[in-house]
Parts: sequence; structure tokens; C-alpha cells
Amino acid sequence: MLSICPNCKKNMGTNKRILVLGGGFAGVYAARELEKTLRPEEASISLINQENYWVYQPLLPEVISGLIGLTDVVCPIRQLAPRTELVMREVQKIDFANKVVTVSPGFRPRQLELPYDYLVIALGGISNFSGTPGMVEHVKPFRTLADAVSLRNHLIYTLEEAEIETDSDLRRKLMTFVVAGGGFSGVEVIAELTDFVNKVRQNFPGLRNEKGRFVLVHAGDRILPEMSESLALFAHKLLAKRGIEIRLNDRLVGASSEKAHLKSGIDIPTKTIVSSVPSSIPLVLQKLDCEKEGGRLKVNVNLEVVGCEGCVWALGDCASIKTISGQRTPPTAQHATREAKTVAKNVSAAIRGGPSAPFAFEGLGRLGSLGHYSAVAEILGVRISGFPAWLLWRAIYLSKLPSLRQKVRIALDWFLVLLFPPDFVQMRVVREAGIARQHLEAGEVIFFQGDLGDNVYLIQSGECDVLRETNGSVGHVATLGPGDYCGEMALLNDVTRNATVRARTAMDVLLLSKHDFDALKSTIPAFREVFQRLAQDRSTRTSSTGA
Amino acid sequence: MLSICPNCKKNMGTNKRILVLGGGFAGVYAARELEKTLRPEEASISLINQENYWVYQPLLPEVISGLIGLTDVVCPIRQLAPRTELVMREVQKIDFANKVVTVSPGFRPRQLELPYDYLVIALGGISNFSGTPGMVEHVKPFRTLADAVSLRNHLIYTLEEAEIETDSDLRRKLMTFVVAGGGFSGVEVIAELTDFVNKVRQNFPGLRNEKGRFVLVHAGDRILPEMSESLALFAHKLLAKRGIEIRLNDRLVGASSEKAHLKSGIDIPTKTIVSSVPSSIPLVLQKLDCEKEGGRLKVNVNLEVVGCEGCVWALGDCASIKTISGQRTPPTAQHATREAKTVAKNVSAAIRGGPSAPFAFEGLGRLGSLGHYSAVAEILGVRISGFPAWLLWRAIYLSKLPSLRQKVRIALDWFLVLLFPPDFVQMRVVREAGIARQHLEAGEVIFFQGDLGDNVYLIQSGECDVLRETNGSVGHVATLGPGDYCGEMALLNDVTRNATVRARTAMDVLLLSKHDFDALKSTIPAFREVFQRLAQDRSTRTSSTGA
Repeated sequence: MLSICPNCKKNMGTNKRILVLGGGFAGVYAARELEKTLRPEEASISLINQENYWVYQPLLPEVISGLIGLTDVVCPIRQLAPRTELVMREVQKIDFANKVVTVSPGFRPRQLELPYDYLVIALGGISNFSGTPGMVEHVKPFRTLADAVSLRNHLIYTLEEAEIETDSDLRRKLMTFVVAGGGFSGVEVIAELTDFVNKVRQNFPGLRNEKGRFVLVHAGDRILPEMSESLALFAHKLLAKRGIEIRLNDRLVGASSEKAHLKSGIDIPTKTIVSSVPSSIPLVLQKLDCEKEGGRLKVNVNLEVVGCEGCVWALGDCASIKTISGQRTPPTAQHATREAKTVAKNVSAAIRGGPSAPFAFEGLGRLGSLGHYSAVAEILGVRISGFPAWLLWRAIYLSKLPSLRQKVRIALDWFLVLLFPPDFVQMRVVREAGIARQHLEAGEVIFFQGDLGDNVYLIQSGECDVLRETNGSVGHVATLGPGDYCGEMALLNDVTRNATVRARTAMDVLLLSKHDFDALKSTIPAFREVFQRLAQDRSTRTSSTGA
Repeated sequence: MLSICPNCKKNMGTNKRILVLGGGFAGVYAARELEKTLRPEEASISLINQENYWVYQPLLPEVISGLIGLTDVVCPIRQLAPRTELVMREVQKIDFANKVVTVSPGFRPRQLELPYDYLVIALGGISNFSGTPGMVEHVKPFRTLADAVSLRNHLIYTLEEAEIETDSDLRRKLMTFVVAGGGFSGVEVIAELTDFVNKVRQNFPGLRNEKGRFVLVHAGDRILPEMSESLALFAHKLLAKRGIEIRLNDRLVGASSEKAHLKSGIDIPTKTIVSSVPSSIPLVLQKLDCEKEGGRLKVNVNLEVVGCEGCVWALGDCASIKTISGQRTPPTAQHATREAKTVAKNVSAAIRGGPSAPFAFEGLGRLGSLGHYSAVAEILGVRISGFPAWLLWRAIYLSKLPSLRQKVRIALDWFLVLLFPPDFVQMRVVREAGIARQHLEAGEVIFFQGDLGDNVYLIQSGECDVLRETNGSVGHVATLGPGDYCGEMALLNDVTRNATVRARTAMDVLLLSKHDFDALKSTIPAFREVFQRLAQDRSTRTSSTGA
């Protein structure tokens, strides 16, 4: 029960309410440090997070290859911060003036308002693909546990489909994997992905001779800009030796369901594009009326949000933080945990009275796994690479895990991988449904004549041609544009598509599944009429429509 | 690559094509036995299954409580049957006349047709809740791995919400759990569920004094009808001692989002209803033109489908099987694996020529876990209960696992559970979206005035009243019926509901989320017009509408 709850058995007294927003490294460690620093009668601590677990972010790439079990990389927040009240909801509004945070509804559609005396903002970043055509629809982000699981499932699906695909072009596409961004995260993802595909491929008789194509696209002139040049070069050579194509000074500027489009003009036909590059702060923080710096919340050296000193702190990826020496802090776990310490100190100073402490941690070093028993590391100025760096990387990350249960489980995972072949179970736990979006480049085909009708396509922008083949000759039937739709004929009559629909320009379309379409149509007669009316309009405009 | 693939490098020769449908115990063991019995040049074996993994069904209830890791209860089919070609698609049509099986599309919307010489049908059962109001929408089936994971996530969600809920009625509902069916599966589910909730509750400060209510509803006059009476009585007493309410001679006959409705007239207010009772064969088999018996495919003692002798076999839960002694075989793993042996023998007899063997396995015994170090067992006529039966249960099931990797991982899981507190991470891997359905009983409320508007409700059947409170008095605004809809006002204007909508009769409604509604509306202007027109129609019929 929350501290504001009238039924709560706890002594409400006059103690202060601290609200921590976010359950990543920054938020959870802030709550842990606050539990250590403050006595229960001094302040109550609540933490708001959409999930009830905390993710050990540095090991997330290992989830792709199944090196680490799905549930071993996470830990319940309640176990990490037992004195903190967890509210498993989404933060929807922050009101500095009235000191209230509004969270999303639960079983009942009502918002909950949580008042606070002290606020700690640690909401992290979100993937932000807006502005680039096709990115939202066709590029897989890599940031959360759900992203990692979904990428793993997608990889397994592409292998299963490649195995039974008879069209060699499509098989090639299915076996091509593009990762955008050559920083730590991108390098770890391409390394794990390559390892996984190459290992698992052995279980697919038809793919034993079908080598995968793995492409890493990076905007800079060397990968791993966070590292010294010699280590970056080591990593580059190692990845190249494993067959990974590294495209430097290039960038992903467009995506469709068929290909990755690069700035250099090159198109890579593929069904798998991963990116962890673009990031911004969550919408609720973007809307917040306070000073920003580079799109992040501006804080002073005490990590207080500028304008709300002594009351609101921000840390982690959502804050623009400079140490006392003027160094900008990178978005890593080692910095977030130190920031959490500083924030906890300063919150208790605000409660008890006393001076604030500035954030002064300058970083101990950098570590990056290259998969396959290799890594690069820079610790306190010393550069290490290869197997020793990999051992160090595992030892450090294992030792930093806050829960013994996780330590044991991950150590066992790592050990069992040595004994057994990799697992490639595809865990589709929930049916993906609802209205999907798709981006098409000019010339790409929405569906072919003869295909099965599994979706209705509603055109948001762009134009397409409807082409029908009769007796070997192809005729142009119609041109469709925004507000039009296509694909309903096959659905209504349960037959295959009677025309091919091809994008004339770049297009954005909505996909309504047969299942949802049928549900709407049978319930609301007017929906059916809409489609019938649209079809009529269309046929008066053109000769005939169909598809 | 499939054996029919023109690009396939394998010697197609004149060898026979065996198609196995289904990847449960029956299907996978049939493929394994066929691999043992037949040489590669005698026949190619393909197996069609929607998932690329096989589930160790007997341990599924342990996934609820997290005793077993999510991925440890499954194994890739390719590893269990390495010589079998796996097709990860859904079986959509079986054509006995032309000896062709059609499967669902993959990345491209085209069906694939797979010809066969010999067909083995092992498609199992599906949950079938049709016919009982509200069951499809509000009762959770327990049959697949996805069901188990989804139930686990739901339990964690109810605990998280109960913890912060201030309304004591709703908190009580959230802490009430109903399981329908007192056979093996139902008993194991209620036992695991009760254990899990009681253990995890310790992590929720507000729930430490909030005991859960656990109800098992069973139609017969004793639970575990599969077992002897003395063991059933032992189990009954043990469950009752743990605080589980057992309602005998009663049945679940209706469900809504607020309660379970029993045949005896009793309503149990709850947010969690689980059932594994109703079952039927998959639709593709129902449509099949062949003899059925009790809704299942009729087979002879050689497990040949009647009318297709020497060409089609059926086994497992989708077949109605009698042993040579006339005994009907139950749907258990021990029987499925023996049936698989018989089928493999008879398929090779058909290929090589020779006599068929009848199915003669009469069962070795029965085992059921009661959770919490207790079980009941009847092995070769000997009855065991309590801790010895539990040890036996674990030993037998561990020894029956086909993969060493799984054996080691599950043994470790069981061991680690003794050392560490239970994990209660909620793994929502994919956003649940799309058009949902809801069933309401008369008097239940769709939404309250003042609620947030997160859905539009489209009425399929039944009627509801729109009630608006102004200055303390409640006025009846309108009555809505099939084809009407409500809830769009709050959506269109981003405000809270301006009226309460209450079911006047039992109702079925479709829910269209704000997200999907906005997408449709902004893309197809005509959709917006439909809603506007409906609203107009409504306001001419009644005084005013709103909501």
C-alpha cells in the first residue's frame, strides 16, 4: 500500500515522502542508497516503474544468443529495495508546482496521483526513430529486455523461414543482418548476433552451406569511439575476421520491410535491421517545464534540477550531467550507480539540513564484449584486449550483480553453455495483434496477385498502382492514394489477391488484420458500409479496382 | 530445406515422404521413433508445428511459480529429432484424396503445399470455451507454455495492483483465485498457484495480512477422478489444510471481468479464473472428412485412421484410441510416447511391407504433484502419497526428459529454489494490442463517469444504460444496443468519461484501444464519419448521449 493510502497500517507521521521515478540502474540504486542513508521514520520511499523488475543492462546482448537465461538478467525491484514501495505503473505527468506525480491506471481506468516532498527523476531514455522514413516500422530497437527477446525471436524466425524458403533471393534477405551504430552497444549486438546465427545454423540442414551476411554500419571513421584507437582497431580486425562487414562513415537513413537504405546510396536487402543509436528522454520529461541541455534535463553539480534546487534531482540517462571537473558523464551503469549515491546523500542533506555534495566520479574505465571469448577493456588507463579482457569483463560484471541469486544463476548459465549446444527456442509468449504500420519505398510490392489475403491496407501517405495480370498481359487497374485502402476483396471473399499492388512513391500504410477486420465488420454494420462506399468511389474514379 | 524443394541438394530419389503433424509428445516422439526405425534412404521425415520447440507438459504447472525457468521446460524440436525437417508453420488443410497438407504463410503471404506418402496426425487438443458466456474473454486456459507464462504474469500483476489498491472490495477480488476442474491438471495448477501467491506475498508489505482466497471448483463428487479414492481423499485433505476451498458437485457456468458464476448459483468475485477443462480437436481436424468418435479421430488398434488404413495414422490427444484389450487410453505423456512407438513400427511396416502391430500399452501408473513437497502416485498398483510420492514424481519426470541439457537445467532449478527466495519478475514481452472482447453480466459497469477514456466499446449483443450524474442526481441518458458503441467522447476530447455505462442485460462488447482508434480515424476519414453518423442517429433517438 502506498504511503498516501488511508487504509495503510504504517505510521504516516510527519515523515517526508520521497518519490523515485524509474527502475533502471539510476532509479533502483538511488532507492537502495536512500534506504541505507535514511531511517524509516525520516522518510518513506516510493519508486514508480512500469515493470516490477530491474534489468542488468550490460548483459542484455547475451540474451540474444541465449547465453543467459531470459529471467536471469533481471531481478524483482522489491527484492533489491525491500523498504521501498513499488508502484508498477507508468509516469504520465509531473507537476512541480503542486508536487504531484500522476501515474497510469491499473485494473480500473483511473489515474493515481502521488504527492511528494522530494523527487528523484531517473526515467532513462527511449528509442526515438521519428523523422527517418520506415525506421519506426522496420528497425528493431535494442534497449530493453523486451527488445532483446523480440530480436532473439525474430532471428530464430528468420532462420526457420530461410530453411524452408525456395526463393533464393528471399533466403539471402532472410540471412542478412544489419546493425546500425558502432558504439559499445552496436558492437556487442553484432558480435552476439553473429555468434548466435553461426552456431544455431548447424541445426538447420538447409543452411549449413548458406553463410549469413552480417553488416555493421557506423557513422564515424572508426568503431568504438568510446575507446582508445588501438583497442578500437583490435576490435575492428577481430570482427572483420569473423566475417562481419564494417561500413564506416555511413549511416542508416531509411528502412522498409525489404531493405536497409544507407546514406552512401547503398541498399542492403534484408529482413533484419537493428539500431540502438537514436535516443531521447521520455515524453513526460520532454513536456516538463524546466531547463534542458542537449535534450536532457539540466542539473547542477549536486544533480539538482535547475530551478527546483533542494526538491528535485535527476540522474542517469535522462539528465545532462557534468562532474565537478566539467567532464560530461556517459550513460553507463558505473556512472549511474555513483550518481545514485550523490543523490541519496543530497536528499538526506535536504531532509536533515546540511550541505550538498557535488558529483565527482570520473569513471574507472571501459569494457566491451566482442563475443566468442574476446573483449576490449581500458581500466584505470591500462588497455587490455582479447581473452584476458573477456575474463576481466565477466568477472567485473558478475561481481557487480546486486543479488546473489542472479550471480549464481548467471555463473551457471555461462558454465552450462560450455557443456551444451545453444538453445534456439522461439518464445512467442503473446500473440502480436492490433493495427500495425508498414513503410514502403517506391517500387516495393504490398502484395502480389495470387497471394493470400491476410490484411487490409489503409494508405496514410504515398501512392500505389494496382496491376492485374490477365492471360499473360499486365494491365494498370487503378492508382490509390492517401485515405484509400486496398486488399479487402480477398478478405471479404476468402480468396487470393486478384491484383498486385506496388508502391509508386514512398508510402506509409496501416495494416488491419483479417481477424480484427472481421470483428469490426460484423459488429458495426457501418464499418462494412464505409468500405463498400470507398470501393464505389474508387470504381467511379477508375475503371475497376479489386485486389 | 524441404524435401520437395527444387533447390534441395539432397538426393530426392524415390524415397517415401512421411509428414508428422504436431510437435507435442505424440508428434515429436513419433518422429524420433521413425528416425530410429527407418534409414534415411528409406524415407524423409518432416514435422509441422507452429512452434520450433517441444514442451515438457507434465512440468508446465511449475512454470507458474517459477520453480522451473521459462526456457528450461522446452527443447528445440530440431535437437530432439535432428534428421526430421521441421516446418514452423500452422497446418491449415489436410487433403486425404490428393495426399497434400497445406500450411500457413511465412514472411510472404503464400500457402505452402506439402505432399506426403504417409501421414501421422498428432495435433493434440485445443481449449474450447465456446458456448459458455464470458468464458472465452475472461477464463484463462491452461494448456500451452504461453498459457502458463500468461497466467504467471497475470498473477504478478494482480499482486502488484492489490498492493496499491485502496478499495478493499477490489483488493479482495484481486486476491481471489478460482480454478475450474479438479482433475490432475486443475489440482496441480491450484497447488502451484497457491504456493506461489503465498510465498511471493511476503515481498508485498501491504499484503502480509491480506490472505488470498483460493477456490477449486469440480463437477464430480471427489477430486482426482483419475486416482483411487483413498489418494484423492489424501489430496483433498492436504489442499483443504492449505486453505484451498474445494467446491465439489459444482461447475463454472459463466464468467465476467468481475466474477466467476457457478452452477449452484454462487458468484465468486474475482479477477482470476483458470480452466483446463473443455477441450476439442483443432478446427483443421474437425473439418476433416473421416470418422470421429467422441469428437476425436477414430483409429483402429493399429492406430490407423479408419478409412485411410496403411496411409494415415493418428495418435495422442486428437485420436480416440482403445488398446487391444478395449481400454480407452487417457491423454498422458506415457501413453503418447508408447503410441508413437506403435505408429513408427506400423509406418515402417507399410513402407517395407509386413504386418502391423496393435497398440497394447495399458499404463504403468499415475502421478500428480500437490506442490510443497507432496504428491500422490499409483505405480503398478501401489499407492504412495506425501513426500515419498513427491520424490518419486520428481525422479520419474526428470529421468523421462529426453535432453541432457534440460535434465541438468531443471535439476539446478529445483536445487536453486531451495537456496533463494522465489522470483516474481513479470515478463511482458510483447504489448498486448488489437481488438479485445469483453463479456458483462447484467448490472456490471463498462465504465464509470470520471474514469479515463482508454477504449471505445462496440456493442455486439445486449443492452446498456447510459447514466449521468449532475449535481448529485443521476439521470438516464440513453439505452444502447447491438451495433451501437460508446466511449468515444472521452477519446475524442482526451477527457474523462462524462457518464456511467451499465449493462442492462448480459452483453458482449468489442474494445478498440485509443491507440488503434486514433490510427484508424486519422488515416481513413470515413471511419471518423461512421462514428459521427452513429452519434447523430443516437442523439435523434434519445435526449443526449455522451460517455
